[in-house]
Amino acid sequence: MISVEDATRRVLATARPRPTETIPLTEAVGRILQEPLHADRDFPPFHRVAMDGIALAFEDVAAGQTTFPISATQLAGMLPQPLSSAQTAVEIMTGAALPPGTDTVVRYEDLQFHVVNGQRVAALQVPPPAAGHNVHHQAVDREAGDLLLPAGVKLSPAEIAVAATIGAAELQVARKLRVAVVSTGDELVELTQTPLPHQIRRSNAYMVQAALHEAGAESEAFHFNDDQAALRQGLPPLLDAFDALVLSGGVSKGQADFLPAMLQELGVTQHFHEVQQRPGKPFWFGEKAGGAVVFALPGNPVSTFVNFYQYVRPWLRRCQQPHRKLPRPAALLATDFTFAPRMTYFLPVRLETAPFGHLLAHPQKIGGSGDLASLLHCDGFLRLPPEPTEFKAGDAYPLVRFR
Amino acid sequence: MISVEDATRRVLATARPRPTETIPLTEAVGRILQEPLHADRDFPPFHRVAMDGIALAFEDVAAGQTTFPISATQLAGMLPQPLSSAQTAVEIMTGAALPPGTDTVVRYEDLQFHVVNGQRVAALQVPPPAAGHNVHHQAVDREAGDLLLPAGVKLSPAEIAVAATIGAAELQVARKLRVAVVSTGDELVELTQTPLPHQIRRSNAYMVQAALHEAGAESEAFHFNDDQAALRQGLPPLLDAFDALVLSGGVSKGQADFLPAMLQELGVTQHFHEVQQRPGKPFWFGEKAGGAVVFALPGNPVSTFVNFYQYVRPWLRRCQQPHRKLPRPAALLATDFTFAPRMTYFLPVRLETAPFGHLLAHPQKIGGSGDLASLLHCDGFLRLPPEPTEFKAGDAYPLVRFR
Repeated sequence: MISVEDATRRVLATARPRPTETIPLTEAVGRILQEPLHADRDFPPFHRVAMDGIALAFEDVAAGQTTFPISATQLAGMLPQPLSSAQTAVEIMTGAALPPGTDTVVRYEDLQFHVVNGQRVAALQVPPPAAGHNVHHQAVDREAGDLLLPAGVKLSPAEIAVAATIGAAELQVARKLRVAVVSTGDELVELTQTPLPHQIRRSNAYMVQAALHEAGAESEAFHFNDDQAALRQGLPPLLDAFDALVLSGGVSKGQADFLPAMLQELGVTQHFHEVQQRPGKPFWFGEKAGGAVVFALPGNPVSTFVNFYQYVRPWLRRCQQPHRKLPRPAALLATDFTFAPRMTYFLPVRLETAPFGHLLAHPQKIGGSGDLASLLHCDGFLRLPPEPTEFKAGDAYPLVRFR
Repeated sequence: MISVEDATRRVLATARPRPTETIPLTEAVGRILQEPLHADRDFPPFHRVAMDGIALAFEDVAAGQTTFPISATQLAGMLPQPLSSAQTAVEIMTGAALPPGTDTVVRYEDLQFHVVNGQRVAALQVPPPAAGHNVHHQAVDREAGDLLLPAGVKLSPAEIAVAATIGAAELQVARKLRVAVVSTGDELVELTQTPLPHQIRRSNAYMVQAALHEAGAESEAFHFNDDQAALRQGLPPLLDAFDALVLSGGVSKGQADFLPAMLQELGVTQHFHEVQQRPGKPFWFGEKAGGAVVFALPGNPVSTFVNFYQYVRPWLRRCQQPHRKLPRPAALLATDFTFAPRMTYFLPVRLETAPFGHLLAHPQKIGGSGDLASLLHCDGFLRLPPEPTEFKAGDAYPLVRFR
């Protein structure tokens, strides 16, 4: 039986980038950019006025001039208004291009305006300290041709704004991962059915699909009863059409747990079966050459949940951003905790943000790996290593967060 | 001029819940539940077998019996198989309902099987320690009728699974907020146009729409040049049709900044104008009675960004979950930092997760509030209060996170 760390490494080793697709900028937030974006112009593209006020030549201020006749007014978006004559100023608004002959902006708060012989005149109350004051100079942030965004970054609102600035109306992005969610189990009935006393409704498939949606993947759900013939016929097309299959149920030691053998018959190479962890030990993982990887998760809901967030979500991220380090969040155990078996324990925890910025993890009682409702009060699992047996309040452990 | 805290309070005071809508469970992840959900049955609904193995009567073990003839086999989903006679056992799989006459499950790992006179017999290797071992008892997690989910919770994958379990194929949720994103500014051209030397492409509207999408709101974009007549005609229908308007540009002291006066003419009551903060000081906020609230944000991209995450996103959250405390994330300043003006400073920072779980905020250089590209290297802003002037490495401050 392999360790959680080894299992995680083997899962991630199968992650491969997917083909690129082109989509409109307006649909690109959250996606992974697959082309480098360069500045088409300087940033800013002109000497950009940074405050509302007047534009003047600093040499006039340096020469002792304190009042400036206004020779023109220039709003943002207007062609730059040249000074009508030396020693005048242009009244000007934020976002405008600095007029020829000027190099400095004095903001309204530092001016008083008068009218002298029908001519509007600005008097400096606080003279500008240096040439270039309140000017956002052309190319100071980026130069035309500079790399703005490398391929591989995730497009958040900041990247979307930068892409808009350079006119990237369409972007090449990694296509979403496509996952088939396969549930098995004769005890499961449809959502809309009333279960018999010994039956329950299907819930894992809904949980996995919701988690896939949150992780930015597309999914489709399939159900098979524990019927070998139906599975033998139903699985091969899924193995060819999808990037991954997430199965829940059918991988522990029971008589109806024939999935591992059948998957291998269908050409799925087993990478491992069973991980030294609780819950979720019977996890089976394999890969069809040129086809899907297969996450066959144990069917107890808490086990499904742990394994999804420990293995499936990181695999999805690695496929989308192969060169990016995966996040490694951690949290501090809030109270002492004992777990004796020599296996990794995924301790259900509620998280609290402490005043000085770190996360405190409060262990939550849970009625075994079938206790789905207990997850409602948890935010994640603290991943406690096989040793020691006694875990101390205040120690930090890796956090597998689902909320 | 009011403080950031006061401005935030006034903004949040206008948040009101929106009407409810009914949607399919499969589309509900991330939405806010608007009805309480109760358990339709006990959780678990029957004494549920928690391991693959055999079910037996513990009293037989207590009486010294160590071998058990197998009288039936019961897979999950099968009707419970009664014992054919006393002192026998049922071979049984995880998820099955415990057979009548049995109360305890012994897992395969603790058994050896033999065939005696054509009869399959299980010999206990490790006797069960007590009655009820490996049984997940009916109703131990929740009883029929128990409240599972109150109205107001956000539906994450765990809640989706619980809703599926009780057969909630449709859910009542809060409808998404509808926001009109209005850009103004004659210097702005469309994404697909080539700007003249003194023009730039529109980018704030794309940024705000992307951020609204991430926050779970719907949005539509509108552009008006700095043309009072067009705005006077165009804004009223938006004020009636949307929950909020986010405007960018047109609220500072410039000659073309007529928005505040016009908004009041159009029946939008001003709640405040200008906040003691940098960047983003000229923020104007108002509300039309029975209509939209109006966030009129200054047009410099970093100012728009700061104000969106400080004011708009919390307002959206408060409308969706009025009774939930807003998250108050914090991070530790990684290096000393000085900011002299007596105003709240939104310091751009890159975040690092420290090994023991807390967040370190590294200040980033930025070329003023027009330096959109600088946001690419930031994850958020540390909100530094007006006093003191010297901020020390290691101190914790509120974090406004956008990535």
